[in-house]
Amino acid sequence: MDKGRLEAFSDGVIAIIITIMVLELKIPSGTHATDIKSLLPLFPVFLSYILSFIYIGIYWNNHHHTMKAVESVNGMILWANMHLLFWLSLVPFVTGWMGENNFARWPVTCYGIVLIMNAVAYTILIIALIRHHGKDSLIAKAIGKDRKGNISILIYATAIAVSWLNSTVSFGLYILVACIWFIPDKRIENKIGH
Amino acid sequence: MDKGRLEAFSDGVIAIIITIMVLELKIPSGTHATDIKSLLPLFPVFLSYILSFIYIGIYWNNHHHTMKAVESVNGMILWANMHLLFWLSLVPFVTGWMGENNFARWPVTCYGIVLIMNAVAYTILIIALIRHHGKDSLIAKAIGKDRKGNISILIYATAIAVSWLNSTVSFGLYILVACIWFIPDKRIENKIGH
Amino acid sequence: MDKGRLEAFSDGVIAIIITIMVLELKIPSGTHATDIKSLLPLFPVFLSYILSFIYIGIYWNNHHHTMKAVESVNGMILWANMHLLFWLSLVPFVTGWMGENNFARWPVTCYGIVLIMNAVAYTILIIALIRHHGKDSLIAKAIGKDRKGNISILIYATAIAVSWLNSTVSFGLYILVACIWFIPDKRIENKIGH
Amino acid sequence: MDKGRLEAFSDGVIAIIITIMVLELKIPSGTHATDIKSLLPLFPVFLSYILSFIYIGIYWNNHHHTMKAVESVNGMILWANMHLLFWLSLVPFVTGWMGENNFARWPVTCYGIVLIMNAVAYTILIIALIRHHGKDSLIAKAIGKDRKGNISILIYATAIAVSWLNSTVSFGLYILVACIWFIPDKRIENKIGH
Repeated sequence: MDKGRLEAFSDGVIAIIITIMVLELKIPSGTHATDIKSLLPLFPVFLSYILSFIYIGIYWNNHHHTMKAVESVNGMILWANMHLLFWLSLVPFVTGWMGENNFARWPVTCYGIVLIMNAVAYTILIIALIRHHGKDSLIAKAIGKDRKGNISILIYATAIAVSWLNSTVSFGLYILVACIWFIPDKRIENKIGH
Repeated sequence: MDKGRLEAFSDGVIAIIITIMVLELKIPSGTHATDIKSLLPLFPVFLSYILSFIYIGIYWNNHHHTMKAVESVNGMILWANMHLLFWLSLVPFVTGWMGENNFARWPVTCYGIVLIMNAVAYTILIIALIRHHGKDSLIAKAIGKDRKGNISILIYATAIAVSWLNSTVSFGLYILVACIWFIPDKRIENKIGH
Repeated sequence: MDKGRLEAFSDGVIAIIITIMVLELKIPSGTHATDIKSLLPLFPVFLSYILSFIYIGIYWNNHHHTMKAVESVNGMILWANMHLLFWLSLVPFVTGWMGENNFARWPVTCYGIVLIMNAVAYTILIIALIRHHGKDSLIAKAIGKDRKGNISILIYATAIAVSWLNSTVSFGLYILVACIWFIPDKRIENKIGH
Repeated sequence: MDKGRLEAFSDGVIAIIITIMVLELKIPSGTHATDIKSLLPLFPVFLSYILSFIYIGIYWNNHHHTMKAVESVNGMILWANMHLLFWLSLVPFVTGWMGENNFARWPVTCYGIVLIMNAVAYTILIIALIRHHGKDSLIAKAIGKDRKGNISILIYATAIAVSWLNSTVSFGLYILVACIWFIPDKRIENKIGH
């Protein structure tokens, strides 16, 4: 089965997710709506937006790289991809909730849960891809032991636990994972020589 | 006429439909907005969202498979496809209405009506495709008697009738149809050998 | 200049326009939100939605057909296309305004103005395309005297004038134009033999 | 790395940005909602919408032209592009804020800041592209000293400063930059002969 339309559909969904998040930046209203101070309460929302924008960007980036190393897809992969898109689609909700409540404990915890589910969904997608292409395939070699993926899940889990003590530290840990992934996946880039 | 742009446009519309549904998950507000309990009232909305996400996913999946077996399109097919997109576009509305009202009778009935209209629209699309390609075409053989499609419409009709007695049973029947279709359409996959 | 990305971008914008219109169908709230009667006030909104959905569908359809007959684009055509997308983007606004106010005079007038501007923008796009390809080009022959386009503008103008006497008649005239265009543009389809 | 999917993803995001801006045109409500006068308060919003629509159109246009002159992309370019999309995604917010507050000082200033950041992000994208393709590449020659880009940033900076004295003049300066860029980038069009 051709991978082209799966890429096109994923691009569409990810493009919409990354863009509707900005709707959480609600235009100030009321008597002081034109004052620069009216933007102040939006600051945590803006900060959450930046982080989530980078996260969605990372997922698109890795999706792009992973699909490069792939030759074809099957029904299982279509659904693993849909599962990933489902968890990505929840990012705007937790981003808004976390931002509007100034990084309160529960929203920060839930943000982490959605991130960890995204990471799990991505791992499942990669497993489905490797199963389809075989253990000696380009994609299998490129991913290898998926150390980066496993470390990310570990940090997310730590961040979720820590959110009960100090949610700012959790937020810092989410930023840390983003930093780890910021650089496109060299593993694949090296192997396929793009 | 080339099928490429019809696929691209359908991908776009379906990607937007599946993503704007998440906007129904409204961020909790008020004094207890940061409490985990504030997510509780969202649970039926979330459940509806999951079901509709799977449904739209199934339609995209089947659309993808069906179009694979098709060589060209005509004006009739363009409009049959637009008709399908129309009914798909009503899914977010009934999903939100059903979720926000905790699976009350009328919303559950209307959800079923929209689902049945989607199934009818898909059947019309397939008829238009088979008429265009001929009875001996790949697509005609792949679809065959469309048993799965007919059974689905029957179950939807039952669910709509049952919603007057017990809307939870109706919801269960909607899940049942989703399970039937969850696996991509083997009929086509087998015939075209993808 | 390649026409591919212009088609892709137009597809994206049109797909979003056709889908965000459904957001005007607001989910009933209040004490009787689960009653079927709560859908009654949505009926004119729904009617407007159907008409606008068909209109946007017609524009996508004709855009698709016109671009088929075109070989390349230039800067002028890019902007003529953007100008068309601008007027198309106002359709959701006037659709919602007309629907929510039960086809009151001014909203019906403005709906007609937006439709007439869409028709004018489409005519400008066609002129830019013919100027680029020459008077003996496929596209020039296919469009010919653009009788359908001119008749539509005439009917829209009549509908706008009539809206001051009886807005229901105007709405009927809008439906009439939709009927004229419902069938894909045979002029082009015949010439290019798709 | 293939530039196709980067173009497709950018097209998607830009198409959504340009279309969700229209959601700021809120349908009049209240007792006089059907009166033409109810559209009057929307006039500054509409004006802002037109300007931003043209701006986003210019960016899409230039992005289209720039990518034409490019052969491949790398990780750095992917992120430079994502950075541009981030600043473009803030255009709807500042457009709405400026329009709803009738071109008040602070919103006009912030509109300018977002525009200047877009211009900076575009410059960074071009630098990343030239670094990747070399100083003798088509893209390097086509862009040259990027005079238009530098002049734009200068005018934006002036407009931001002037907004403290007279925000109408600032708005005029924003229109001026749009006029400068309205014509597609001849520099590239000439060089690659499209």
